[in-house]
Amino acid sequence: MSITKPSLPKGTRDFSPQEMVKRNYIFDTIKTVFKKYGYAEIQTPSMENLQTLTGKYGDEGDKLIFKVLNSGDYLKEAERRKTKDQSFEYNAKNLLTLISEKALRYDLTVPFARYVVMHQSEISFPFKRFQVQPVWRADRPQKGRYREFYQCDADVVGSPSLLNEAEFILIYHEALTNLGLKDFNIKINNRKILSGIAEIIGKPELIVDMTVAIDKLDKIGFEGVTKELIERGFTNEDIQKLEPVIMLKGSNDEKLESLKNVLANSEIGLKGVAEIERVFDYVAKLTSSISHLTSSIELDITLARGLNYYTGCIFEVKTNEVAMGSIGGGGRYDDLTGMFGLKDLTGVGISFGADRIYDVLEELNLFPASAAQGTKVLISNFDEAAELYALPILQQLRTANISAELYPSSAKLKKQMSYADDKNIPFVILIGGDEIESGLLTLKNMHSGNQQKLDITTIITQLKQA
Amino acid sequence: MSITKPSLPKGTRDFSPQEMVKRNYIFDTIKTVFKKYGYAEIQTPSMENLQTLTGKYGDEGDKLIFKVLNSGDYLKEAERRKTKDQSFEYNAKNLLTLISEKALRYDLTVPFARYVVMHQSEISFPFKRFQVQPVWRADRPQKGRYREFYQCDADVVGSPSLLNEAEFILIYHEALTNLGLKDFNIKINNRKILSGIAEIIGKPELIVDMTVAIDKLDKIGFEGVTKELIERGFTNEDIQKLEPVIMLKGSNDEKLESLKNVLANSEIGLKGVAEIERVFDYVAKLTSSISHLTSSIELDITLARGLNYYTGCIFEVKTNEVAMGSIGGGGRYDDLTGMFGLKDLTGVGISFGADRIYDVLEELNLFPASAAQGTKVLISNFDEAAELYALPILQQLRTANISAELYPSSAKLKKQMSYADDKNIPFVILIGGDEIESGLLTLKNMHSGNQQKLDITTIITQLKQA
Repeated sequence: MSITKPSLPKGTRDFSPQEMVKRNYIFDTIKTVFKKYGYAEIQTPSMENLQTLTGKYGDEGDKLIFKVLNSGDYLKEAERRKTKDQSFEYNAKNLLTLISEKALRYDLTVPFARYVVMHQSEISFPFKRFQVQPVWRADRPQKGRYREFYQCDADVVGSPSLLNEAEFILIYHEALTNLGLKDFNIKINNRKILSGIAEIIGKPELIVDMTVAIDKLDKIGFEGVTKELIERGFTNEDIQKLEPVIMLKGSNDEKLESLKNVLANSEIGLKGVAEIERVFDYVAKLTSSISHLTSSIELDITLARGLNYYTGCIFEVKTNEVAMGSIGGGGRYDDLTGMFGLKDLTGVGISFGADRIYDVLEELNLFPASAAQGTKVLISNFDEAAELYALPILQQLRTANISAELYPSSAKLKKQMSYADDKNIPFVILIGGDEIESGLLTLKNMHSGNQQKLDITTIITQLKQA
Repeated sequence: MSITKPSLPKGTRDFSPQEMVKRNYIFDTIKTVFKKYGYAEIQTPSMENLQTLTGKYGDEGDKLIFKVLNSGDYLKEAERRKTKDQSFEYNAKNLLTLISEKALRYDLTVPFARYVVMHQSEISFPFKRFQVQPVWRADRPQKGRYREFYQCDADVVGSPSLLNEAEFILIYHEALTNLGLKDFNIKINNRKILSGIAEIIGKPELIVDMTVAIDKLDKIGFEGVTKELIERGFTNEDIQKLEPVIMLKGSNDEKLESLKNVLANSEIGLKGVAEIERVFDYVAKLTSSISHLTSSIELDITLARGLNYYTGCIFEVKTNEVAMGSIGGGGRYDDLTGMFGLKDLTGVGISFGADRIYDVLEELNLFPASAAQGTKVLISNFDEAAELYALPILQQLRTANISAELYPSSAKLKKQMSYADDKNIPFVILIGGDEIESGLLTLKNMHSGNQQKLDITTIITQLKQA
């Protein structure tokens, strides 16, 4: 074996024990809420057949898919082709089509669609599933953007009811509240409203250009949006019609009333408004006896998101406590499984941005102390006699379900103490000659520095309460 | 988008909600025990640099590593080489070295060694970590062998104390007992004992051949082992010396006494015996006040495992309740991080075979009912009035931390009931005209078929107890 100086592929990360505990805290909190609303977990393989993924994410997306080399004698087929076919050009591109048939998952949505189609006979619809797994993208790595990252999705397929949309709003609200966030907006819009607006101004064919431009209102202001709209083929007259819609102000109810006027002649537009009203109505009914959360829900006409497959409501979540992009998003798609031959199965789903939520909680100092603690108590190791005395005590602590360690050698006490500090272990039991003689052990609280002499039963009681 | 008939790469699997709940039950049970013994979780990226993995698993292993194609313009470099260098042979092999620099993790041990070396300045040794992540191997798929599967490992590096070995025996015992297994053997041996035996018969250079042969005693009996030993260069005289060692019978103590006699002239052999004795001693002290588990620990001289990097104690776990290969194994390695330039760091670790444990629990029917349950109660949906009435009740149930769903449309009752059945939902609340009028809801127990009319407070109390 030659010695290799170790490094990581760019855009990938190790997670230390401290980071894992915090990440698990986020995932567990979100999963608990998913389950409470009837969503069940599935997992799909990291590798999919290349043809399952290709063509689903646009040309740019296709380039970012990580391909996996065929295993074993992947060269044989290429050489066989060359031998048989003189005209076969022996260049890299031709070889690659022969040597790679698999690729790493690019998102959780396409594998989920593949799952639903493959398992349709076993599934009882509506199918409510959640999935928390890594995905891989060959994006240029930069701050906050990785080549391997976790997605955290919940989707329901086979139910057109807008109750699902309402429940997703509640899921966002409950999960983020449980994570300690206090001020966040759940933005909602509807693809049909956007279609209606494009229809009203007489440019239905420019809907994508329109939404791409108005999506930037936050960043570039109305003047910037106007400039972009003109570049994209809209006239000043169009923009005059658009202005009152884009600049819509007031409460959600006021916005809906305005939209009904603006969209009075667009069937699809009015359908979008009615869907939003229905969702708001469900949310109000669901929460009537409990708490007020409607203040954080905002109808935002400029919200567009990836329009490629959304067909109804769309969501986006932002925190107001930290400057950060969206920490969640989703929407309804009327035909996701069509790409695999199963038509007319409607779905709606949401996603949590776990990496961003991690950064938000870190910045706001919202991780609970319990999310930083592994081992609860370390028993020091002075010498062989003390180690011998400690062994049954160690196992007594564990039998009481207390996470415990005995330092495995009689190193200097300072070293043992700094081990406890580094591992964030809150208590140390010191056992020396006095302790062995009296049976009273010294319990040291590592935060306060306090020491008490106690018997093991009292120590167990104290540790279980601490 | 063209329509693709969906399929999975061979050797990979989807996990359904029912399977996920059971898999999580196994992983959670094992992780809880790891934590209780002071082990903390880490994760490493799925992709490692190819040079991190190559040469660590032998020639056969290298062939089974899944390589990932470079992203972006991986063809450019190849074409640049061709243009610059006329002698560059434009064949598949040359291209591949240019187009693949990353590979999928083959096990958790080498990435762990890489992690320890890269993070050595942040780590407080001894470093006790566990890791539960998928690995990928381009093995020929067959029953029970997959190309993507989870490994579940715990290792400690930086501590030579045999307390660690003893604690791993306890971890195996506690985790498997918590999973409901009653009759299993934790086999232990020591690499130094095997070295001592090879030394005694005067063939230290044939140690690998010797261990490969005697490892098969279970399967081919002593006659078969004799035949193989002769083929591998041992004489009849050697085998006469080996026989009493291989066929060692009796209690662990009796075996140790015999070994001390046989290995009286081998320093390394006696060291191995002393290590085993020390481990047994630790186990006895740790468990003296609690329970008897020593009956399931067996010193097995024929146990060899992969000898490539183990240097001290080795472990293997087998269940006696089902015919199945080993469900766990591990051992001590004195120089794992040396391959990455960090010398003299000793480690010891164990692994649980999660897929096999799954099959064992399934066959013995040991999954608890709780490990099959997601949603606890479904509210039926008769019509719009009933749906409206149900909404606040739905949210009341969830506020009481009861996982609840409202069927999202007024489908036929039979369909709603079979939805509950398929999802293994144990209770259904039926709300019709009578229920709305009286405020008493019908709670149906799906197992017994019993129905009761109760108010929502009583239902919540009953569901929380059920």
